[in-house]
Amino acid sequence: MAQIETFPNPAPQRPYTIKHVNPEFTSVCPITGLPDFATISVKYVPDAICIELKSLKYYYLEFRNQGIFYEAITNKILDDLVAACDPLEMEVTSEWTTRGGIHSIITAKHTRSE
Amino acid sequence: MAQIETFPNPAPQRPYTIKHVNPEFTSVCPITGLPDFATISVKYVPDAICIELKSLKYYYLEFRNQGIFYEAITNKILDDLVAACDPLEMEVTSEWTTRGGIHSIITAKHTRSE
Amino acid sequence: MAQIETFPNPAPQRPYTIKHVNPEFTSVCPITGLPDFATISVKYVPDAICIELKSLKYYYLEFRNQGIFYEAITNKILDDLVAACDPLEMEVTSEWTTRGGIHSIITAKHTRSE
Amino acid sequence: MAQIETFPNPAPQRPYTIKHVNPEFTSVCPITGLPDFATISVKYVPDAICIELKSLKYYYLEFRNQGIFYEAITNKILDDLVAACDPLEMEVTSEWTTRGGIHSIITAKHTRSE
Amino acid sequence: MAQIETFPNPAPQRPYTIKHVNPEFTSVCPITGLPDFATISVKYVPDAICIELKSLKYYYLEFRNQGIFYEAITNKILDDLVAACDPLEMEVTSEWTTRGGIHSIITAKHTRSE
Amino acid sequence: MAQIETFPNPAPQRPYTIKHVNPEFTSVCPITGLPDFATISVKYVPDAICIELKSLKYYYLEFRNQGIFYEAITNKILDDLVAACDPLEMEVTSEWTTRGGIHSIITAKHTRSE
Amino acid sequence: MAQIETFPNPAPQRPYTIKHVNPEFTSVCPITGLPDFATISVKYVPDAICIELKSLKYYYLEFRNQGIFYEAITNKILDDLVAACDPLEMEVTSEWTTRGGIHSIITAKHTRSE
Amino acid sequence: MAQIETFPNPAPQRPYTIKHVNPEFTSVCPITGLPDFATISVKYVPDAICIELKSLKYYYLEFRNQGIFYEAITNKILDDLVAACDPLEMEVTSEWTTRGGIHSIITAKHTRSE
Amino acid sequence: MAQIETFPNPAPQRPYTIKHVNPEFTSVCPITGLPDFATISVKYVPDAICIELKSLKYYYLEFRNQGIFYEAITNKILDDLVAACDPLEMEVTSEWTTRGGIHSIITAKHTRSE
Amino acid sequence: MAQIETFPNPAPQRPYTIKHVNPEFTSVCPITGLPDFATISVKYVPDAICIELKSLKYYYLEFRNQGIFYEAITNKILDDLVAACDPLEMEVTSEWTTRGGIHSIITAKHTRSE
Repeated sequence: MAQIETFPNPAPQRPYTIKHVNPEFTSVCPITGLPDFATISVKYVPDAICIELKSLKYYYLEFRNQGIFYEAITNKILDDLVAACDPLEMEVTSEWTTRGGIHSIITAKHTRSE
Repeated sequence: MAQIETFPNPAPQRPYTIKHVNPEFTSVCPITGLPDFATISVKYVPDAICIELKSLKYYYLEFRNQGIFYEAITNKILDDLVAACDPLEMEVTSEWTTRGGIHSIITAKHTRSE
Repeated sequence: MAQIETFPNPAPQRPYTIKHVNPEFTSVCPITGLPDFATISVKYVPDAICIELKSLKYYYLEFRNQGIFYEAITNKILDDLVAACDPLEMEVTSEWTTRGGIHSIITAKHTRSE
Repeated sequence: MAQIETFPNPAPQRPYTIKHVNPEFTSVCPITGLPDFATISVKYVPDAICIELKSLKYYYLEFRNQGIFYEAITNKILDDLVAACDPLEMEVTSEWTTRGGIHSIITAKHTRSE
Repeated sequence: MAQIETFPNPAPQRPYTIKHVNPEFTSVCPITGLPDFATISVKYVPDAICIELKSLKYYYLEFRNQGIFYEAITNKILDDLVAACDPLEMEVTSEWTTRGGIHSIITAKHTRSE
Repeated sequence: MAQIETFPNPAPQRPYTIKHVNPEFTSVCPITGLPDFATISVKYVPDAICIELKSLKYYYLEFRNQGIFYEAITNKILDDLVAACDPLEMEVTSEWTTRGGIHSIITAKHTRSE
Repeated sequence: MAQIETFPNPAPQRPYTIKHVNPEFTSVCPITGLPDFATISVKYVPDAICIELKSLKYYYLEFRNQGIFYEAITNKILDDLVAACDPLEMEVTSEWTTRGGIHSIITAKHTRSE
Repeated sequence: MAQIETFPNPAPQRPYTIKHVNPEFTSVCPITGLPDFATISVKYVPDAICIELKSLKYYYLEFRNQGIFYEAITNKILDDLVAACDPLEMEVTSEWTTRGGIHSIITAKHTRSE
Repeated sequence: MAQIETFPNPAPQRPYTIKHVNPEFTSVCPITGLPDFATISVKYVPDAICIELKSLKYYYLEFRNQGIFYEAITNKILDDLVAACDPLEMEVTSEWTTRGGIHSIITAKHTRSE
Repeated sequence: MAQIETFPNPAPQRPYTIKHVNPEFTSVCPITGLPDFATISVKYVPDAICIELKSLKYYYLEFRNQGIFYEAITNKILDDLVAACDPLEMEVTSEWTTRGGIHSIITAKHTRSE
């Protein structure tokens, strides 16, 4: 996978919230081989380091031709980004375009255990 | 009724939320025999298993020519889906198009008793 | 007044929420004799019985040529519907179209005392 | 019927357009006796005289408890207002709220024959 | 098929436009057997007779369990309604919900040949 | 200032909420002498008396040619209306149109001390 | 009245369109003495000179406490601005907030006679 | 390229319009190698044959990993679809998501020369 | 000024339309020295060459700290882009954020003289 | 930096909320040198003094040609404004336009420690 770059949190003196919204996410359905489209939102409270935006874009591009389920993608992005920046809190939401007349929204959250 | 298929939760390590929204639900009014139209939303926190999306679509299709009241449908969907996947929590909302100048929204929630 | 019909709650095993929204309510201002227009929303948690939708429509029609104030209508609807179905909770909201450049929203809530 | 008041056109030197939109029109269905609701728009190019706004409001109020069809109302308003102010052109549009799952829009136009 | 009822045009003295919009149309895909959903709009200039609204609703209900293509439905509705009321002009538009990531709009128009 | 009229609360048996929204408020900037425009919302829980709507309109008109700051107006309206009706709770919000590329929202709340 | 300032058209080599939209117009009803609110739009094709924006704002402010009818204001603004800049074409539209449940839009147009 | 399937026009007796809108189109920028996203709309008047919807979806999928410019894609789709069904008229529009702060819309039209 | 790059029109066989919309344009008011903000739209029918998107972005950046009037910018952009690509037709529209309570839209069009 | 002016809180008798929203903020990306655009919202509960609106506008203008990251700007504005007016609470939110297909929202909050 593409490396998620980070940079030092410029305001470590206070907890605050960063949200990155990507309406251009696409992956492939592992059953049908057809593309899926989603908006992925990442909201987190940084601790010592922040996620660099350009590397986040390249990380998302890795999924373009991968076959993977909605629920698995959402949790994998949360796992990967938590591993990359060890935030105080992070929430990942994926909102998928209509398939079979149904659209889906998945939300997963991590809170750092003390 | 159509069988609701399931698959193993790919992220059992954390509670997270899945929401499936179907704006194409239709059933029949048991009094007048005329069709009703609704958007059905299911939001749940899976435990060991998740609901498979295609079977959910076929489950909804079973109501197309059934005569059943708003309040009964909403609670029946909740009962059936809870029985199918035994979630930690589940909420079903049905939003109905206008009848007699009035539109209705029904919401029912299940929380697993410990 | 028109009789509010009821039917047995099809899911008495759990508390759940029913909301009926009527954007076609009209009554008459008791001062000017001119018509007022509102959207009336009723949201409630049924106990043993539910409100029947068609009788609710006829109940609202009774106000069409009555002179009555915003605050009084909202509370009267709440009183009448609570009397009709003895719910666990009920909230009535009326949203009025502009009069004298001002529009108004009135909200009243009943919770069954144990 | 209420008298439609008029006043002299303050700018007879040029043709220009006046549009009055009333989202609070209501009448009664002649078949069911139930109320209908519409937005009525009147757009016209005045000649020597203009329609006074307050009398237009009272004119609309006359329909509140009358039983009359959509197509007939729209053409009657056009006939009455043309008779009242003899405009160069006039168009009346009525947009009705949903009945039986269908909503309707009726448009009728008058152009002064030379 | 259900009979389309008509009534005499109440304003034969002028050409004017009637539009009926039905957002609750559903039929069945002849290939997959799955339901399709559409908003059907009919706009016409009546000559001697108008389409009765309630019979139009029942006419649409006949398609609920029929297998038929988008293009064919749109033209069939136009043919049937033209046959029923012989209008000066009529236009039928069908707007379909998303299938395979694509949504479709079909428009067909009839003008009476002199 | 114009007198704020009141009337007896028609439902003193329960606390409930009344909201009056005025999108047509205007006053004058005390520095530049230029007009300011705002939407003023008053939300309150009445005790024994309610605010009469027409007198509220006339009260707002008094500000039309007064020079006064955003923060001061919002708190003055709250003070004046609390003095007029002694509510259980009241909240006043003013939302101002853009000045210098910035638009402002001020919210002040009163809760009756027991 | 305030003087409408002008400046030389910077592109006299081609006809082009300038539109200034003012959502903060207010005047006074000559009958009731109560304020009216409108959005005034001026769209014109300049010839040798253009209207200066700040003086246009001050020109509008002159109406703040004047009693004048909708139709008269719209035509007066057109007359005044045509006199100030002698454009090839100019159109003035005023859209008024609701009075008596009705809102109005007036449009007047000037084309330079050759 | 994927084959575009067709079927006989079910209403060859009249010209009518078919529009297919695909908000899930994606291709690759030939300069940067990064993905582009667009909504592609095809509107046409069929002659003897119509475009089959499922094969249209597969045709669009062929662009997923191709490097090609906005202007070229739009004209290529028009060329390919005209070749496939020889329509009386066809218009293709592509609306692209923001790149470098700018979003683009390209429209190309074909009319059958007699 | 930055050089506007071009590339050969990939579809010279037909006239078609290209539109580039930039909601992030900013320049400086020559009177006050304060920044202005606009959305600039360029719509054109190319002849032999097209405007390259990245160089268009850099061209717009040149205005960031320039003092220039709305009417002059709009016509200058049209002049510069016509000079760069000699299109069959081009239209430039600038929509400016509110200043002094008024927002403005300027539209200028070029058609190649034969 | 520009001086942030303040004035005495006109209502020190109660805590209340002031929100200033600026949709016209622009700064420069320190990596690429290209401009960034944001809406900056400041919401605070004043203690003894309030922020003067015109000086806030000039303070924001200082960032126009500065190279600085999203996270750093948001926290710097919070630090500067807290230093200027020592509020009981303050929250700063910055919402950025799309870069690389991703848009970002940063929120930082200060609460006065007792």
